Amino acid sequence: MTGTLYGVGVGPGAPDLITLRAARLIEGARVIAYPTLAGGESFARAIAADLIPRDAREIVMDVPMSTDRAPAQAAYDQGAIDIAGALDGGDDVVCLCEGDPFFYGSFMYLFARLSARYQVEVVPGVTSVTACAAQAGRPLVARNERLTVLPGPLPEDELRARIDGAESLAIMKVGRHLPKIRAIIDSLGLTAKATYVERATLANEVVLPLADAPDSAPYFSMILLTKGADPWL
Amino acid sequence: MTGTLYGVGVGPGAPDLITLRAARLIEGARVIAYPTLAGGESFARAIAADLIPRDAREIVMDVPMSTDRAPAQAAYDQGAIDIAGALDGGDDVVCLCEGDPFFYGSFMYLFARLSARYQVEVVPGVTSVTACAAQAGRPLVARNERLTVLPGPLPEDELRARIDGAESLAIMKVGRHLPKIRAIIDSLGLTAKATYVERATLANEVVLPLADAPDSAPYFSMILLTKGADPWL
Repeated sequence: MTGTLYGVGVGPGAPDLITLRAARLIEGARVIAYPTLAGGESFARAIAADLIPRDAREIVMDVPMSTDRAPAQAAYDQGAIDIAGALDGGDDVVCLCEGDPFFYGSFMYLFARLSARYQVEVVPGVTSVTACAAQAGRPLVARNERLTVLPGPLPEDELRARIDGAESLAIMKVGRHLPKIRAIIDSLGLTAKATYVERATLANEVVLPLADAPDSAPYFSMILLTKGADPWL
Repeated sequence: MTGTLYGVGVGPGAPDLITLRAARLIEGARVIAYPTLAGGESFARAIAADLIPRDAREIVMDVPMSTDRAPAQAAYDQGAIDIAGALDGGDDVVCLCEGDPFFYGSFMYLFARLSARYQVEVVPGVTSVTACAAQAGRPLVARNERLTVLPGPLPEDELRARIDGAESLAIMKVGRHLPKIRAIIDSLGLTAKATYVERATLANEVVLPLADAPDSAPYFSMILLTKGADPWL
């Protein structure tokens, strides 16, 4: 019997924001897979650490930090080979993914490589977007409002146009793009409506009005912006 | 001691897509609150049913079905009074919300009424957007892609412009708006890239190419549309 590949979202960071389904799969896993970034610790593994069986085999995909995509693709190619080997041997493989697997998640790269040949199940997770909103006490969208999710690395002109045209906004992956994004929001007169959140739901979480945000931001940071005036009453 | 109000997302429908934190809060609750729609069953309560203590007190907000907002606001006004009474008496109150409380969630109405006077904590949940993507086997966004979430009840002209300008799209609350939305997507030549999902993660879930979708859709239905060509490889 060939095994099943599970792409499991482990949520935004707090271990108890893992779903019951994900927890059950991780606790029962014989083989766990996850990416690390340039030899660092795996954030997804850290979130799930207390649930991982001590004797589980771990398949680590070390993804180099580079704007050239070929080295990352090679890491996922090798990861797919290792995972396929475990599946062929009859083991299920639980692949951990921070947040949700299909929302900017690394699991997509494995899904693209393996879903045609193997049984794959995706377990959705809590995304950082709703986690940041919860921690900031900021409703995102109600009734017939639109939500736009933008990655911070987009070019300045495109970001400006998208922010200007949006209604409720989450800007992801802020990191080193914070000065650029802040300048755009400022020039649109929207700074007072924006909240900065980093490491939502973790012990070292930061939630601040954008005007008070630090000059440098970690990769896992977000800006929430709602233009409406308390539209959820 | 005044109690704390918890706004708890219970996820898209499958009971095991509740988070560990939400499950612990529900299992320990003395007072549970939730809305029902026009006297019907509460979907949020049904998702969490197995976790609710038998002796918990239940505060039900019956929200009338109407385009006039005043009757719904009156139902939340009364719910807020009932919840405040329990909080003043020293009980915590766990308010159940399908999906995520701040993502088109009814909890926003209680948050607006009570958060200035009481301690409120929001527990984010898995949204129907990522649940539909998981069930459809359709990655939503990778790398620097944009995601737009649109409510199906928006006017036709606005929907057309937003769909045309988006990159990756989730159209929520499709329901009786399905013929209108389908005609727009058809006229933009995008039908082959769209998937229809109803009741994601429930036993009676439906996942179909949009071209094969039924003529009438329930309220809890969604269309996912990704314009890119397998951009997650």
